[in-house]
Order: sequence, then C-alpha cells, then structure tokens
Amino acid sequence: MKKLSTFLLMIFSISSYAQEKTLAEKLGYSKEDRLLIIHADDIGMAHSENIATIDAIKNGVVNSTSIMMPCAWSTEVGELIKDMPGLDIGVHITLTNEWHTYKYAPIASKSEVPGLVGPDGFMYKDCASVAQNASPEEVEKEMRAQIEAAIKIGIKPTHLDSHMGCVFYGRPEYVASYIKLAEEYGIPAMLNQQIVDGVIKPNPELFKDLDVDNLILIDETAIASPQSYDTMGMENFYTELLNNLKPGVTVLLNHIAFNDAEMQAITTRFTHWHAKWRQDDYDFFTSQKARNLITANNIKLITWEEIGKKLK
Amino acid sequence: MKKLSTFLLMIFSISSYAQEKTLAEKLGYSKEDRLLIIHADDIGMAHSENIATIDAIKNGVVNSTSIMMPCAWSTEVGELIKDMPGLDIGVHITLTNEWHTYKYAPIASKSEVPGLVGPDGFMYKDCASVAQNASPEEVEKEMRAQIEAAIKIGIKPTHLDSHMGCVFYGRPEYVASYIKLAEEYGIPAMLNQQIVDGVIKPNPELFKDLDVDNLILIDETAIASPQSYDTMGMENFYTELLNNLKPGVTVLLNHIAFNDAEMQAITTRFTHWHAKWRQDDYDFFTSQKARNLITANNIKLITWEEIGKKLK
Repeated sequence: MKKLSTFLLMIFSISSYAQEKTLAEKLGYSKEDRLLIIHADDIGMAHSENIATIDAIKNGVVNSTSIMMPCAWSTEVGELIKDMPGLDIGVHITLTNEWHTYKYAPIASKSEVPGLVGPDGFMYKDCASVAQNASPEEVEKEMRAQIEAAIKIGIKPTHLDSHMGCVFYGRPEYVASYIKLAEEYGIPAMLNQQIVDGVIKPNPELFKDLDVDNLILIDETAIASPQSYDTMGMENFYTELLNNLKPGVTVLLNHIAFNDAEMQAITTRFTHWHAKWRQDDYDFFTSQKARNLITANNIKLITWEEIGKKLK
Repeated sequence: MKKLSTFLLMIFSISSYAQEKTLAEKLGYSKEDRLLIIHADDIGMAHSENIATIDAIKNGVVNSTSIMMPCAWSTEVGELIKDMPGLDIGVHITLTNEWHTYKYAPIASKSEVPGLVGPDGFMYKDCASVAQNASPEEVEKEMRAQIEAAIKIGIKPTHLDSHMGCVFYGRPEYVASYIKLAEEYGIPAMLNQQIVDGVIKPNPELFKDLDVDNLILIDETAIASPQSYDTMGMENFYTELLNNLKPGVTVLLNHIAFNDAEMQAITTRFTHWHAKWRQDDYDFFTSQKARNLITANNIKLITWEEIGKKLK
C-alpha cells in the first residue's frame, strides 16, 4: 500500500481501521471523555455569515470555523479577526458555487483551472460537475491558491476541510492532494460532513492508496440534516445531540449567519441551509442553554489547533 | 487627425467642440427642451444596490442604469430584469475595486490581464494604479469580457460608461478601445462623472487622436459631490438641480441602494458614496416630490436606448 500520508486524515467511524489507542487518549484525555469541536462552516461567504460567526465565537460556544476564500467577503474576515490571535480557523476548501444569484470564481487564474469554471464563468453548482470536469492538477492548484490567499489576509490556518465534501467526491487524487497539502502546511485535514450525512458517498477507491493505519480518525462528525431541521427543529436536535454525545472526539458542524436581506438573497430558492437555518444555528450556539448543556454533560471543548499540535 | 470613431462619445461641455445642430435637435427635440436621463450607477455591485435600483426604476423616476459585471451580485440582475424587456441598462465598465472588505477580480482570466490585478489578487482600488499597471490591451480585453458577461446573463446593453471614470484616466488608448467597443456593439459610450466633478482630470492627450467633430456630445452631466452632500443634503441638491436644469441633454448620475447592513459593510470607512448617501438617493428618486419637479419644470425624460437608436 503506497504511503501517501504519515499525518492526519480525520474519518468518521470507519471501524475496520483499528487504532491501538483512541484519539482521545492520543490527545492526553481518557477514553471516556467527551471531546467536542463546535465548528462553524462557511465564514467568508457573506458579510452576514462573517459577523454572526465572529459573534458566536466571541459571545457563544462556537470555538472553531473555516473560511471560503473565493467569496467576495473573505477579505473582511482578515479584518474581523485581527484582535483574535488564538482563533481556530481553517481553510474551507471551496470548489463549488451552489447559490443561484450570488457568484464566485476560482482564486487561481481561470485559464489555469478551466475545469473548475462552469459555462457561466463561475464555479460549478455541485460536486458531480467538479468531479466530471476538474483534473486533479487543477484541484490541487486551486486548493493551494486558497490556502495561500488565506495566509495573505493574515490567517494562520489551523486545519483544512471541504465545502460540500467535493474533495471526497469522485476522484481519489483530490483526497491525496488534500492530505498532501495539509502535511505541507503542517495542519490536520478533516473529512466533510456530507459523507456523514450520506448525502455524498465517497468513491470506494478513495482511500485505497492511503496508509490508513497511519491516519488519525475523528470518532464522530455531527451535523443537522434537512430532516432534523424539518422534524425536530435546531434547538431540539442540538439538545438531544449534546445530551447523548458519545465518548471520544466529535466535530459538530454548523452554519451561522443572520436571517437578513443579504443571506435571504444568497440562499434564494434553497429550502435548507438557508438564512433561517443559519439564524437558528446562531440562536442556539449563542444561548445560555447551549452553555448549560455543555457543562451539565461534562463536555470538554477542544480545537483543531490542539489536535494539530499534539499529533504532529 | 486620425479618425478613430465615427460614432458616439458623450463629453460634458467641451465648448471648443462646436456642433452645427444641438444634440437635442439631432434627437428631434427643440433646442429649448430640457431632456434628462436619470441614471443609477452601480447596479450589480451588491444585493442592496440591485433591489433598491430596480425598485427606483419600477416605482420611482430613475429610467436608466448600468451594471458592474465583476461583482458577486451581477448575476442577480439578470434574474431581476426578466420582466423588464425595455429596460435601459448599460455596462458600467469596472476596472477598480475601491472597497476595503468587499472584493472582486477581473472577469477575464487573471493571467491574461495581470495589470488589472493588484497585490491582493483583486482589482486595484484607484484609477491611478490601473493607469500605471494595465496595458491598453489588457483593459480592452477586460472591457470586452464585461460586455460579453452582461449579454450572457440576458442583458441587451444600451450604452457603456465607466466606473470612477478610470477609462478616461491615464492612457488615451483606453478611451479609444472604449469607443471602438461601443461602435462594435452598436451602442453609445458615455464620459464618466469624475471628469465633471473635477475629481479626475482627463489626460490632455486623451482626445487628440479622436475625430471630435464626429463625436456626439452630452450637454451636461450632473452628479452630487461630497460637498453638495455635506452642505445641502441630497433633497436640496436635486431640487435645485431640477429647478435649474438647462436646455439640452443632461445625464443625472446617482447611486441607489438601501442603508442596510450589507451596504454599510461594503462602504465601511467611506465618508461619502456610502450606504446613507445611497439611501438618500433612493428616497429622493422614489419621492412624489421628484415626480412633481419633473412635471413642473417640463422636463422630458429620454434614455440611452433612444439616443443610440436615433443617432446610429
């Protein structure tokens, strides 16, 4: 088995990949500890997303985020975090532009990554189109451009993850590049929530060339699904989640913005992941109830930076 | 004198360029008629700008606009104007990204127009930097890309104009390309307000190679200045303007958006042309008072489409 990585890949509950010590133990905790990263995806995507996410970090329980560099508002994040030197912030590798009326293109020159540019001149709307059109070289070039752009606006990335999971969809080489870049920048790389959701099922070929025995696996990734939004509502979903958190390391992914005119326009015609959904996330993760649930359940908050430093 | 253009260039009151008939007469009006285009710049720049401008066209007295294609929200305009087939809408050629935290890059591939890309990966903030860095070939390529992008989202451009007047700043070849492209697409090209303001004084070389005798000249371009905003306020400024409109063709340039969170963030640290300024413009040009002033002063509203068609 070709050894592509000696560093980190965080994978949800692939039980066949046995580990001698649990991840919690490797991080210096007991295997009974409930360890949690409360992670807000999509900062940089919009002004509304930026100010709501920063507020939920400063005044709520969110303790990690990751940035979408190709979007018009990513530069604002560099300004907003100037007084937050220890901030846990990764690069949310973005290969798609899923919105109907709010657009962005790759950061790399379009002529150098033509496979990432759709017929409208912006990124494709879905991962399948990316997989169909973008070569592994193009994806690696764009991923690198996004990491470099983040560094240029003053971010010290603590991890990589993948918007809509597109890195894991279709071509095994995307994953290899993702892990390679994470190693190069000395940070962990996370697997995307869509796999957890079953929304996107990764190609079975995805990990065949990876040295899985040497990869670090996240025990669980948790995220609200459209069904949980529709049937339970956010507060009930997260309450149940925090009351039943399993021992080990969980990454709780959310999407925090305000239900305002900008976010409503960006998410136009979306029945989920929209402005109201993001406001509900903001409301819960800035509530006293969330804080109380963390205390009552003896949940220990950890960060990607901690994982990166301890497992380097 | 080299004949670069037999078509249209709209220039404010350069009296040495004599015309036998006035522009009003060429358009079929008397030379005593007060003809006015009420033009909202900057549509496409932001969601706030888009919905406010469309509203001011549908429910106010604004009757023309021009779009900033490189911005994240330009695509939304294509959707918003689907039910407005006769809309007067030009391409607001955009070579600068003047905002501090809201960013956009050229539409053309960055590697093909490197002179239009600043060190942060986006357009430069001011016209001087454009003139210093961008070759005439790069500017022509980007202008063409913006016109083509507008057509791609369903716009039938009625005219060209220039954001912040950068087309007129620095290199005479920019103006030549601008006129050439207007001819090619069969539409008029307008001179930018900054020249009128004296904010940017065009290079004296600018028109030396143009066949000025064959250019069509706008009689007056009117725009609120920072001084008029500070000392008179928008309502007083426009009231005085409409009560004292001279005979001939005037283009009244304004900037219409809502004083909301998005626009406040885009215009952060700007003391003029900001969210409040744009809301004041919206308020005046959707008021009954504006309508009454137009009627009382017997002002006839004309459009760029009319000029383009009659003078072709």
